[in-house]
Amino acid sequence: MKKHNFSAGPSILPQEVLQKASEAVLNFNNDNLSLLEISHRSKPFVDVMEHARTLVLELLNLEGKGYKVLFLQGGASTQFLMVALNLLEKRAGYLNTGSWSDKAIKEAKIYDDIYEVASSKNANYNYIPKGYDIPADYDYFHCTSNNTIFGTQIKEFPKCSIPLVCDMSSDIFSRQLDFTKFDLIYAGAQKNMGPAGTTLVVVKEDILGKVSRKIPSIMDYKIQISKSSMFNTPPVFAVYVSMLTLEWLKNLGGIAAIEKENDKKAILMYSEIDLNPLFKGYASKGDRSIMNATFNLVNDDLKETFDTMCRESGINGLNGHRSVGGYRASMYNALPLESVQVLVEIMSELETKA
Amino acid sequence: MKKHNFSAGPSILPQEVLQKASEAVLNFNNDNLSLLEISHRSKPFVDVMEHARTLVLELLNLEGKGYKVLFLQGGASTQFLMVALNLLEKRAGYLNTGSWSDKAIKEAKIYDDIYEVASSKNANYNYIPKGYDIPADYDYFHCTSNNTIFGTQIKEFPKCSIPLVCDMSSDIFSRQLDFTKFDLIYAGAQKNMGPAGTTLVVVKEDILGKVSRKIPSIMDYKIQISKSSMFNTPPVFAVYVSMLTLEWLKNLGGIAAIEKENDKKAILMYSEIDLNPLFKGYASKGDRSIMNATFNLVNDDLKETFDTMCRESGINGLNGHRSVGGYRASMYNALPLESVQVLVEIMSELETKA
Repeated sequence: MKKHNFSAGPSILPQEVLQKASEAVLNFNNDNLSLLEISHRSKPFVDVMEHARTLVLELLNLEGKGYKVLFLQGGASTQFLMVALNLLEKRAGYLNTGSWSDKAIKEAKIYDDIYEVASSKNANYNYIPKGYDIPADYDYFHCTSNNTIFGTQIKEFPKCSIPLVCDMSSDIFSRQLDFTKFDLIYAGAQKNMGPAGTTLVVVKEDILGKVSRKIPSIMDYKIQISKSSMFNTPPVFAVYVSMLTLEWLKNLGGIAAIEKENDKKAILMYSEIDLNPLFKGYASKGDRSIMNATFNLVNDDLKETFDTMCRESGINGLNGHRSVGGYRASMYNALPLESVQVLVEIMSELETKA
Repeated sequence: MKKHNFSAGPSILPQEVLQKASEAVLNFNNDNLSLLEISHRSKPFVDVMEHARTLVLELLNLEGKGYKVLFLQGGASTQFLMVALNLLEKRAGYLNTGSWSDKAIKEAKIYDDIYEVASSKNANYNYIPKGYDIPADYDYFHCTSNNTIFGTQIKEFPKCSIPLVCDMSSDIFSRQLDFTKFDLIYAGAQKNMGPAGTTLVVVKEDILGKVSRKIPSIMDYKIQISKSSMFNTPPVFAVYVSMLTLEWLKNLGGIAAIEKENDKKAILMYSEIDLNPLFKGYASKGDRSIMNATFNLVNDDLKETFDTMCRESGINGLNGHRSVGGYRASMYNALPLESVQVLVEIMSELETKA
């Protein structure tokens, strides 16, 4: 049975990418060797790394603007640490919009003072705070563009005169933004870019080298840049599959094209949530994520019926995170509109049944 | 043409492992979903992680002896840092046997004082120092079991009354040792265990929790243990392929069986190096690595001829590291004896020609 994969991450990847990835595990570059068993310093893999970097800058429209691209390991959770190690000298401002922001704050606090410019923690993060001030004398301001768990997303980024750092793990490459507003963007690959195992960092080089602490080599963005992400052996397979996914996106027409598809999916999904009396959305309407729609059954007695209907239709990964409960439809770039249609039909069928 | 893959890492993996890995990228667990697109918290993947952990303890004969197994990210280079963060309070002793030891020392020095108990740096690491003392009041002693670049290997580990930490990246699972002598073993996967992208850590739990510094969560072995290597999203694919490789090794008969094969390959290789007047070995004879044989041509004029002969026989990855030059035959677990036979025949043919 065909699956409709709403998994929050690791999550759906384009079928043609999976096909090519599967082939490369057996025979990469027609060389009769697996991608997994060649040197990361061999020309075919160095080319993959370079091509992946170029695609990132191209898709984000950041070519020739002083940005460097890194493919690292350790997930966004390691970036919580690296951002602080590389940029935090005296004080930084963080916007707290969910579990991931909260964790980023916690890790940065090991190194120095952190100021929460605003938080939606007391409302269990169901909205995005607005109208806060960012002190102009801080080292940087950090925010999370999309909150996978709660289904909220920053629509308008604040004016910011200090370096703007953004965790875009769950919505990178999904919508057009003026990416030059950001000085450092990071994202775990496993939503819109590739398999778990690599983390994208896009950093404006001129913000680096300003802290006084001694940074461990592997955590030092400047060292990683000087070694083209090959300070040590990179996660070869995850980088290759990311490159394939970025190529797929470029061939589709880039972010402008995928944004239209993502908007269609989100409109369909949220219309059903709002019109169907059996369901209610979790996130504040103006802050709803285009990537992750969170919703609950009004009457939990229908849970078993609904879950069975979902399972029978091949729907996978719809469970909400334990801190919100209910359901979460993750509609990343590779999820076809058809999968949302199937889900919406089931929700509508449940209404007829109930 | 069939390739003979002597690559130093990432390196050869068993063909049946590559086959299964390739299939899982398209359809894992007969679920019509790719291994790359399922949740790491789903039962099928949690089972993979648990099985991989069990296999490690089983193969190393460490079951029920107070050890925990972690599959992390960031390579051995990240362990240089984590070891110091988690264990270094006052002072530690390091044995310097090559570039990797040297880097481990450099990173640990950020945190505290490091004492080099011995070093073979002045002889460009062509031997393993012996007869040194390890101060009994240090926090731990660190060594590198096998030096990929220089082709040396510790045959006899020192008596050590303090925690013994060993980087076994390039010879783990290749030979029988009393692994209970070690308190912490780490190894990047990409030689004997799997693809690049995950790092194995086997740690005796009772050595942890003794330093006063605040350790970043993702760098804290205790936190990683409490979360079963899932503090954040693990490198799903690399862990799965490692599990397949460990299964392959177990089915072969474990470390005892593979050690016999490795010994055969090494004896064949070193006999040719020693008997063929055109070649000379790099490493001191008593310290020669069973995994990586380093050797040079006596007369560099033969280089082009030899390189062409190698290429025409499908030999891949034989170039020595730039710091040693010449050649390096990496003979990891998955390399068949046949590949060494092919190489040795070419060397012998060169002698006839020359």
